[in-house]
Amino acid sequence: MRLYDGGRAPNPRRVRIFLKEKGIEIPIAPVDLGAMEHRSDAFAAINPMRRVPALVLDDGTVITESIAICRYFEALKPEPPLFGTGALEIALVEMWQRRIELHLLAGIQQVFRHLHPGMKDHEVPQVAAWGEANKPRVLEFLALLDRELAGRRFAAGDSYSVADITGLIALDFMRAAKMSVPAEFTHVGRWYAELSARPSAKA
Amino acid sequence: MRLYDGGRAPNPRRVRIFLKEKGIEIPIAPVDLGAMEHRSDAFAAINPMRRVPALVLDDGTVITESIAICRYFEALKPEPPLFGTGALEIALVEMWQRRIELHLLAGIQQVFRHLHPGMKDHEVPQVAAWGEANKPRVLEFLALLDRELAGRRFAAGDSYSVADITGLIALDFMRAAKMSVPAEFTHVGRWYAELSARPSAKA
Repeated sequence: MRLYDGGRAPNPRRVRIFLKEKGIEIPIAPVDLGAMEHRSDAFAAINPMRRVPALVLDDGTVITESIAICRYFEALKPEPPLFGTGALEIALVEMWQRRIELHLLAGIQQVFRHLHPGMKDHEVPQVAAWGEANKPRVLEFLALLDRELAGRRFAAGDSYSVADITGLIALDFMRAAKMSVPAEFTHVGRWYAELSARPSAKA
Repeated sequence: MRLYDGGRAPNPRRVRIFLKEKGIEIPIAPVDLGAMEHRSDAFAAINPMRRVPALVLDDGTVITESIAICRYFEALKPEPPLFGTGALEIALVEMWQRRIELHLLAGIQQVFRHLHPGMKDHEVPQVAAWGEANKPRVLEFLALLDRELAGRRFAAGDSYSVADITGLIALDFMRAAKMSVPAEFTHVGRWYAELSARPSAKA
């Protein structure tokens, strides 16, 4: 088994944090995103979508999509559960994982991809107006998340889950998008500090 | 239990098709998206994100995000399995569900939301250049999907899964975005015809 990794990009990091929380170690093959190695024909033979991360199993089967890779390891090693247990918790973890991914992480990624000068060869065409349109949406979602986190410790309830991992990689990625968490969102700030203090945050 | 539904919009439909495939019937509360009922303060009390669908349990707990609602019912009634069984199949279903959602459905939704005149009060601001930028990406993903479907019956393998449901709602939604599946993609065409012929497609 081998994990094709992408350094500081959010999705590869999501898998590394997940593995660290699970206590799983696997061989890592670095892919140089800055040098566009993921866009090469050699890498397309592994993942035709030319994206990282990609997990290659010993029989050659390839699993891509960071959350799919995480679910693979959750099924192989259920403890500690990071996708919830029982119908309701499974649903709430999925709900918050998706809300945070679609309304926070994806929004920040659009700001970064469409406004950062360094992305002009990666995001073609860059549409600045679309990048700008995402900024207020990210802040609006942070306001909602702040109200939610006033009442509980983690994104989906009292237990740490993959929804928190997505939250951490999203908030860390705000810097690349030249954004930051407004100081008024104290509950988000408290949550972000706790997630950042876990050993897995260094993965 | 009550499901707040949104008629022909893709995500509410995804849940209805899923329930039909599972053989589950629950009370439905229609929400009039055309009249912006989902943006009202009354509906925000159910889902602060002002989106449908939303499932309200008997104790008042609210589950939103169509896939989270589907996972809730998958956990309550595992047969027939629509999210896969066993680590590898679970991972491959998740991989294809996400690829189809992020690169097909989401792309078509961006074309619709940013280019359709009827969406100007729903998508503010409409960014036409971003809508246009999604069209070639949708076609590029369909080309990849066509090569994949040359070798198997369903999106994630030999079994029907939630990835196929996402595929069906995405392809049906192309019409609203004034797009269609190019005739050259014969494997996508065969797959689309088979999904459309299932009784659940009418849900």
